[in-house]
Amino acid sequence: MSKAKSGNISPSVIKRLPRYYRYLGELKKAGFIRISSRELSERMGLTASQIRQDLNCFGGFGQQGYGYNIQQLHQEIASILGLDKIKKAILIGAGNLGRAIANHMSFEARGFQLIGIFDKKESIVGQMVRGIPIRHIDNLDEFCRENLPVIAVLCIPSEEAASVVDQLIKLGIKGFWNFSHYDLSQYQNIAVENVHLGDSLMTLCYNVTHSLK
Amino acid sequence: MSKAKSGNISPSVIKRLPRYYRYLGELKKAGFIRISSRELSERMGLTASQIRQDLNCFGGFGQQGYGYNIQQLHQEIASILGLDKIKKAILIGAGNLGRAIANHMSFEARGFQLIGIFDKKESIVGQMVRGIPIRHIDNLDEFCRENLPVIAVLCIPSEEAASVVDQLIKLGIKGFWNFSHYDLSQYQNIAVENVHLGDSLMTLCYNVTHSLK
Repeated sequence: MSKAKSGNISPSVIKRLPRYYRYLGELKKAGFIRISSRELSERMGLTASQIRQDLNCFGGFGQQGYGYNIQQLHQEIASILGLDKIKKAILIGAGNLGRAIANHMSFEARGFQLIGIFDKKESIVGQMVRGIPIRHIDNLDEFCRENLPVIAVLCIPSEEAASVVDQLIKLGIKGFWNFSHYDLSQYQNIAVENVHLGDSLMTLCYNVTHSLK
Repeated sequence: MSKAKSGNISPSVIKRLPRYYRYLGELKKAGFIRISSRELSERMGLTASQIRQDLNCFGGFGQQGYGYNIQQLHQEIASILGLDKIKKAILIGAGNLGRAIANHMSFEARGFQLIGIFDKKESIVGQMVRGIPIRHIDNLDEFCRENLPVIAVLCIPSEEAASVVDQLIKLGIKGFWNFSHYDLSQYQNIAVENVHLGDSLMTLCYNVTHSLK
């Protein structure tokens, strides 16, 4: 039932799904079995009716006066997010940021398996990051044809991104986790998540500057 | 004139300011002197009228048929963002992510100066990151009283964040760049920018999973 419904979820609900998933995971880890929409709303800073409405979108499991089964809801959200179908990912750019992302992120817990790391810098080719050797970018074609990754994490300067992105799309990449400032909105039929750290820091600068006045 | 206006800018315009700043910086670097709202709109994927409206909010500098003075507009946006008033920042947590952020980010270009790095792990205390020694978290009080930072970058697990955040707020921290999953919305009168990398990756997972269907 819920799978059939998952195509109709509104973008604003989708945006909240990772947070629900995180909170429910914490509750599960802490040994809780059920939670009411009121308790969940207090934890998440949303209204109880908002939560009931959101969770109804994908079948929900709430029962009046009884709450949600945490384990069941957590698993259901994982399935809607697609976390249970592991997709192959590659990382382009093994500088400071690329290495940190590779080492720091729990890709597997978020639906991905990191299978390759690429850089153009000869001197770091062969180094291991998270048990994966850094390969030269010249081997990208061959590697992708053999291993069929669908996601690329872009940790390269924007001026280098244009040609690599064209190449990656031809090689079958369907989604980009984009840490570069290269604008991917010009491409059709790909999924993009931008992480613009510099923009985030400037927004903080604005908010602090104006709150300090 | 524009300074007086900057208090009235709507949140949606503020959100676009870092992007304007970035694009104008690229144009400036490439040697351009003026740009029309039409050219800027094509580059940024916004409508020309949207851009004229946005830039009018802070005085603008556009002249009919003549365009915007890039250098002037770039500087004006820097001033509105507060990038010209450098604020002191400290980093809490010098693991993979913390180090990468310290090494990778151009703090100075975004209005901040990173002056201190703290961790609770004895074995890394004294190591240098970006020319800054890692200090033990026990020295946080003394350091903050002497150096008066106003921003903290949180690169620690959420279970460690609660007590440190209370301490930091007492020590005068006014803004948090939050990479942890600790929920800072419960605190009043502080500026917060969350970077939830895991949520971003799960959103990408959802979008790719559903576009692959």
